[in-house]
Parts: sequence; structure tokens; C-alpha cells
Amino acid sequence: MRFQEYIKKKREIVNQALDKYLPDGSREPKSLHKAMRYSVFAGGKRLRPILAIASFEAVGGKGGGILPVACALEMIHTYSLIHDDLPCMDDDDLRRGKPTLHKVYGDGVAVLAGDALHALAFELLLQAKNSQVVLEVAKAIGTEGMIGGQVKDLEAEGKKVSLKQVEYIHTHKTGKLLRASIRVGAILGGADKATLLALSGYGEKFGLAFQIVDDILDVVGKEEIIGKKKGSDKANSKATYPEVIGLEKSKILAKHLLQKAKSKLRTLGRKSWVFEGLADYVYERIG
Amino acid sequence: MRFQEYIKKKREIVNQALDKYLPDGSREPKSLHKAMRYSVFAGGKRLRPILAIASFEAVGGKGGGILPVACALEMIHTYSLIHDDLPCMDDDDLRRGKPTLHKVYGDGVAVLAGDALHALAFELLLQAKNSQVVLEVAKAIGTEGMIGGQVKDLEAEGKKVSLKQVEYIHTHKTGKLLRASIRVGAILGGADKATLLALSGYGEKFGLAFQIVDDILDVVGKEEIIGKKKGSDKANSKATYPEVIGLEKSKILAKHLLQKAKSKLRTLGRKSWVFEGLADYVYERIG
Repeated sequence: MRFQEYIKKKREIVNQALDKYLPDGSREPKSLHKAMRYSVFAGGKRLRPILAIASFEAVGGKGGGILPVACALEMIHTYSLIHDDLPCMDDDDLRRGKPTLHKVYGDGVAVLAGDALHALAFELLLQAKNSQVVLEVAKAIGTEGMIGGQVKDLEAEGKKVSLKQVEYIHTHKTGKLLRASIRVGAILGGADKATLLALSGYGEKFGLAFQIVDDILDVVGKEEIIGKKKGSDKANSKATYPEVIGLEKSKILAKHLLQKAKSKLRTLGRKSWVFEGLADYVYERIG
Repeated sequence: MRFQEYIKKKREIVNQALDKYLPDGSREPKSLHKAMRYSVFAGGKRLRPILAIASFEAVGGKGGGILPVACALEMIHTYSLIHDDLPCMDDDDLRRGKPTLHKVYGDGVAVLAGDALHALAFELLLQAKNSQVVLEVAKAIGTEGMIGGQVKDLEAEGKKVSLKQVEYIHTHKTGKLLRASIRVGAILGGADKATLLALSGYGEKFGLAFQIVDDILDVVGKEEIIGKKKGSDKANSKATYPEVIGLEKSKILAKHLLQKAKSKLRTLGRKSWVFEGLADYVYERIG
């Protein structure tokens, strides 16, 4: 209960901050600002901002200095989803149960709204006044991070992929930004080296497990929960863990990774409860 | 002659630095890195890097600290062209006389290569260790800068636009990044307030004139020089100065703006010669 209250409270704080940082839809160029808001407020779980805030607080960080960074992470995540949903990429019509941005505003505005969120994220990251934080994020979303994973994901479509390949895709496409979210929170909160290392380790295992669970839910999840048609990965011939190692082995692996993630947190002691809760939450999604 | 030698020399230095900063095409993900290099080395004039370097040197900046910033500006410019050329945007098949990126690598990789250049640019900007520089660029390419202009440009297609609208599009889509290029060079070079203001003023006038000349060349230019089919703006029903105020008035306005740009440089004294040369060069393109 304490965990759920924490998540709910942080989610509200993040939503308020996002509302503050995003230009108003009545300001020119209106359609662009409205499009950005449409996607950012389409019902995201705010996982990345929550990871950053939890990490910041776990290492003793105080005050609202983490908020612009937390919101930047959500904007980057949103921009990547917008581009990912485009007809020339995954061609998805639904995201979180709502029509995808390009379905409402057209493909051109969707490309540009993604680009604008990308640039705005860096404006916000700069507010942290910590260049390591900005660099961590820039690297996590570059060719050896998120975009690298997306390219490999795109190229794997319709092909038979190996376990090594799907691991590369997942750790890069999703994992690197999740890991960076935890790391930047810890860095801004003033974590010592050992704690930063422990949290990074958690982030790595958690990030991969999270994406494997996402794959699993695409096969067995309820559509009203996953917010899109079940089986869309298979329909798009995407590289997924269930496709490569089967459903049962994927579940076992995800659970194993989440256990490993939790085991990294020993040095944090009692302050690790949010991260344990998050691991349990992901665990519970696959039953 | 001195001007042309300067430009040639700086262009070579920029090309070498771009080659150093861009991941090698033999490194994974290979297709992404190759795609980024294809577009960056498709024959750009390196105007933005040269503006930044010229500005840096004019105010007394020394050493290579400007180079990562100069290359970041070129990468941002390239990313914007890649996205702009996509079928859902301007749908251009040729750029600088070569097939556009999406024609060679597909639309999906083109979206991602643009995104990757965008992120890499911020990595490079951070090397300046000057947050004002990063912020200036982030703002110049955001919703009240480049992307704002691109959205308005997209929305104006096929519609009758006013002079005010086309001015907004040009000053934002092209002008803001050109102005920022000059400003970040001056900031890094340690310019005083008055000099920064003078160079900004030049950048503003120069930026608008540059885009008006681009419009004019689309009507009267030689295809082997402009690198794409003449009349593509008209074919795409783009908002241009010749379309709104006619060809002759556009020429007069461009020349007037370039004169005004040069007049801003009085405080720079003898150090203004590169900027005068650049204004003259743009002037001469329309004869």
C-alpha cells in the first residue's frame, strides 16, 4: 500500500510538472504544442520519471531539482514512441488505448512533435546544471543506446533472430534509457560510487526484465490493460523473447532477472523499498 | 580570394572533425552509422559550422574548442533535412544532387538516423562545457525555433499565405539556427555584450536573406548548382517570398537585408571581413 501511494503521488507530481514545462496549446505553433501534449498526456505510467525521482530520494537527494530531469526522460520516451508508431516504423494505430499521434495529427506533424519533444528534453536536462546528467541521457538515447536498439529492431522484422540479437534490441531500445533514468537520479542526489554502481546494476536487470514482460503481455495480456491489440508483435513479426525462447522460458527469465535486480540493492538497505516494489509490480503483471 | 581560401580551409577542418565525431560505418549498428554518414557527407556547404568558427575567431577565440560545437550544428542541420525530405514532409527525392537518405535506406532508418544525429549533436555540444551554448541551440531548434517554422511551413502547403506568415516560417525554420550558430561561436570566443548583440543582429538579417535567396534560386537557379529540380517549391506549393511578393521584390528585399546585416558589424571593425564576404557571397548567388 505504501508503495502504491508513493507511485501515485509521484505520478501526480510528474504530471503537474509536465503540464508546466510543456508549452500551452493556445500558444503558437498551436497544432505542434497540442500534438506534443496529446502524446505526453495519453496515459503513460511515468515509469522513467518515477525511477529517477526514487533513485534521487533513495540516495538522499532533496528538493525539486530532479523534476525537470524526470520530465525530460518522459518527453524522450514519448518522442521515441511517436516515431516508433509511424507507418514507416511499427505502423501502430493505437497506443495506450488511444489513436496514435500520426492518426490524429498526420505523419508530418508527428515527426516534428517527436523532434520538438527531443529538443525540449535537452532544454530541461540543462536545468539540472550537471553536465554528466545531460551526457548520460544523450548517450543512452544515441546510436549505442535507444536508437541503436530501434534500428536493430526495425531490421529484425520478419527475420529469424537469435537470443543474442533480441537481447541486444531490448537492452538498447528500452534498457538503456531505464538504466539512465535511475543513474541520473542517483547522480543528482549525490550518490557515492558504490551506490551508483548498485543502482545501475538494478537498472540493467530491471530494464531487460521490463521489456521481456512487455513481450509476454503482448501474447497473454488483456487488451484493456496493454492498451493495444494483443499479438501486435507477432502481426508485425517483431523480435521478442517468447518468439525466440518460448513463453514459459521468457517468464522464468523475467522473474530471474527481477530477482537479480533486487539482489543488487543490498547496499541501499531500507531505502531500496521503492525499487523492490517496482520489481514486484513488474513480476506481478505476468502472474 | 582571401575569403574563399578561408572558407575552403574551414570547410576542410569541419569535414575532418565530422569524420572524427561520427561513428564509423564498420561499427554496429552499421546501417545506422552508414546512413548518418551518407547524409552528413552528401556535400553540404558547412555554412553553420563556418559561421560559428568565424564568429569565435572574430571575437578572439583561440584553439579547437569550437569544433565539436560547429560539428553539432551541422549534424542538427542534417537531421532536419533528413526529416524534411521524408515522404510525409516535403517528399524530396534529391538533395544536393544525390538521392535523399530515405530513398537509399528506407523511411524508417531515415527517421532514426535523423534522431541519432539530433542526440549526437547534444553529446558534442556538451564538450563546450558551457551550458549557455547548449541552451541557445536547444531553444533555436525547438517549438519557438526551427521546428516551429517547419510545422508552419508544413501547414502552409497549398494555402495562400501572407508576408507575415512566410516571414515567420523563414525566420524560424532557417533563421534561428543560423543566428544561433553565430551566437554560440561568439559566446565561446568570449565576446562582450555589444559584440554579441552586433553579431546576433547580423545573424538575424543574414538568416532571413539566406532563405529568401534559396527561394529565389528555386525559381531562377541552375539545377546543377541548387542540387535538386528547379521549381520544387512551386510543385510542392510551398510558402516562398517569390510566391508572396514576386521575384523582383524578393531580390530587392534579400539585397536590402544583406546590406543591413553588414551594417550591424561596424563595432567589429576589421574583424568583420568574413561576415561581409558571406553576405556578398549570398548576394552574388542571385546576381
